[in-house]
Amino acid sequence: MMTYPEIIAFHGHSCPGLAIGYRMASSAMEALKIIRSADEELVAIVENNACGVDALQCVTGCTFGKGNLIFHDYGKQVYTLYARQTGEGVRVVFHGRGVTGEMRSSRDAFIKFMLAVPADEILSVQTVHIEEPEPAEIHKSGICSICGESVMGTRIRQVDGKPACIPCADKAMSS
Amino acid sequence: MMTYPEIIAFHGHSCPGLAIGYRMASSAMEALKIIRSADEELVAIVENNACGVDALQCVTGCTFGKGNLIFHDYGKQVYTLYARQTGEGVRVVFHGRGVTGEMRSSRDAFIKFMLAVPADEILSVQTVHIEEPEPAEIHKSGICSICGESVMGTRIRQVDGKPACIPCADKAMSS
Repeated sequence: MMTYPEIIAFHGHSCPGLAIGYRMASSAMEALKIIRSADEELVAIVENNACGVDALQCVTGCTFGKGNLIFHDYGKQVYTLYARQTGEGVRVVFHGRGVTGEMRSSRDAFIKFMLAVPADEILSVQTVHIEEPEPAEIHKSGICSICGESVMGTRIRQVDGKPACIPCADKAMSS
Repeated sequence: MMTYPEIIAFHGHSCPGLAIGYRMASSAMEALKIIRSADEELVAIVENNACGVDALQCVTGCTFGKGNLIFHDYGKQVYTLYARQTGEGVRVVFHGRGVTGEMRSSRDAFIKFMLAVPADEILSVQTVHIEEPEPAEIHKSGICSICGESVMGTRIRQVDGKPACIPCADKAMSS
């Protein structure tokens, strides 16, 4: 598992959101009694795209590029993790009940607090049953007849009966 | 900048896609003469969500959680990087012209080749002028009157005149 300093190196800076995401993702992993995902063993469904998700990518191995990070744009501090091998899932919610307004006055102190506070004072972990998410798909590519660039087969459109990528097809439609 | 072994640690494994993304992202950074993004100084627009984007996140600091990674689902091996400070942009396309079918027969040899081949044999880098992407936004949160969980203000819906999160609003609509 990546350490918090390694996560800062990935994200670019430390911040309260990153610390919250680190605690949420670590708690999910502990509840699932699982190790980081080398491939697609784990799937994360995140309900926001804020700083904390970078910590989740580092801690869980559910990354944007591996197809096992699913984004629901709900604006909620909620992560659901699903382990393909066991079929088990957990839903982690940041409720922040142990946080007082005073703590938020100093950013550095707030980050330190977030990293040290007992998990149940800031978040809840609940076992959930969810349908297994589909694995990431790989498709053959074709060539766009307009720009000549390679395009994944499922993203090829037709312009005057010839294959085109989405940006070229959009341009052709609007001209 | 993160090294290739550090990028493997983030992604979970090495693969040809990761190596390609590493070369594409590194070439973009060289062309922009810029260092990794600690905050939102750099913006990346990626036209696929395959393995290589994990290398891009590591190399450029344009990450899913920082809001400076924009995803266009075009199925193309194209990354566009934009530097807010200079207003300069580059578009990197993986064309793979230097790759023969034979090379693809061994996965390990193919990865080694990808990491060592002169960049212009596999990709092109072009200066582009694009409109500056909007920075990530932060909004105050409210409470869903149905589940009691916190929701970003811009994602709050109304159910019978009361605030609700998207999943609760969807459930209320369908029941």
